[in-house]
Amino acid sequence: MTPQKKNTMKWKLLSSRTVVKDNWVHLTADDCQMPNGTMIAPFYVSHAPDFVVVIAVTEDGKIPMIWQYRHGLQEVLLEVPAGCVEPGESFEEAAKRELLEETGYQAENVEFLCKMAPNASCLTNYAWCYLAKGAKKVGGQHLDVTEEIAVELMEIEQVKEALRNGEIQQAVHMAAIYRAFEVLGVL
Amino acid sequence: MTPQKKNTMKWKLLSSRTVVKDNWVHLTADDCQMPNGTMIAPFYVSHAPDFVVVIAVTEDGKIPMIWQYRHGLQEVLLEVPAGCVEPGESFEEAAKRELLEETGYQAENVEFLCKMAPNASCLTNYAWCYLAKGAKKVGGQHLDVTEEIAVELMEIEQVKEALRNGEIQQAVHMAAIYRAFEVLGVL
Repeated sequence: MTPQKKNTMKWKLLSSRTVVKDNWVHLTADDCQMPNGTMIAPFYVSHAPDFVVVIAVTEDGKIPMIWQYRHGLQEVLLEVPAGCVEPGESFEEAAKRELLEETGYQAENVEFLCKMAPNASCLTNYAWCYLAKGAKKVGGQHLDVTEEIAVELMEIEQVKEALRNGEIQQAVHMAAIYRAFEVLGVL
Repeated sequence: MTPQKKNTMKWKLLSSRTVVKDNWVHLTADDCQMPNGTMIAPFYVSHAPDFVVVIAVTEDGKIPMIWQYRHGLQEVLLEVPAGCVEPGESFEEAAKRELLEETGYQAENVEFLCKMAPNASCLTNYAWCYLAKGAKKVGGQHLDVTEEIAVELMEIEQVKEALRNGEIQQAVHMAAIYRAFEVLGVL
């Protein structure tokens, strides 16, 4: 679709008011008008920071996966390392730091995989996904007091099975792993 | 990980208060305690309904894709048909209805692909993903006045290229398409 055609489909943002805002949430109620004149008022948007996701592969071809409690679903889920970008940090630096802190694995370099929208409808943020080849175990975890993470080193085939059987449930993590495995040629 | 070990990682929900609730949003501020005793107060959760996502394949092997404005990112994005479940409807019925309404394509049956969490941390809902083989064009779109959707019938190779080049950005849609293509044996 051409940029011109896309522009004809965009809503007009008439006004935006803050519903709640603190360190952890920033929700606005936006009054919008569709190109056909229909008013959408309010449409709620959660303003969230971008974050990084990193699929690492160890020197012997294994994937450091993590288990973590997720309060939205109130479940402990199988994921890959991910986290926020700290002030002054690049996305690449954040990916390397999160990998190291959450798993104790270090990668010299990370390769950009893709940028994806966790929820383009209601969230403003992107997940920046990276592939870290040749990761080495250099120590233990360095977790914040608000984090409890169990590391599990898995074979690529085990991760593929976990994608198929629903053990990996987070959409961003699923998509990032599929993309990483496509780049690695192991799909 | 065993269910017993997972239980040792779960947070305790001490209290939950509604921040805002109407037809379109239901945000709670939950006070939680981690197993290590750390208080997470508040942790915001957006209570959202489950929805369906459907990857259809036409009789001649093409995929009905859609372009739609998404206000979180304020962009027009390439996606597959998706939408909410209406009262009394099964997920399968919702998938068939959304496909028909948004694209004019009809499928006799849909096949369950996977259930995924759009955001297990901050959202309570799941996306139920279906594959609709042998879809046929039976008419035009039947859109709500709040929907403007442009259909584009794409070759499987075009969709794969759109996954690679970042044209398909929504994580749920990316993961669902990868899973569908895996099931179809065209990855």
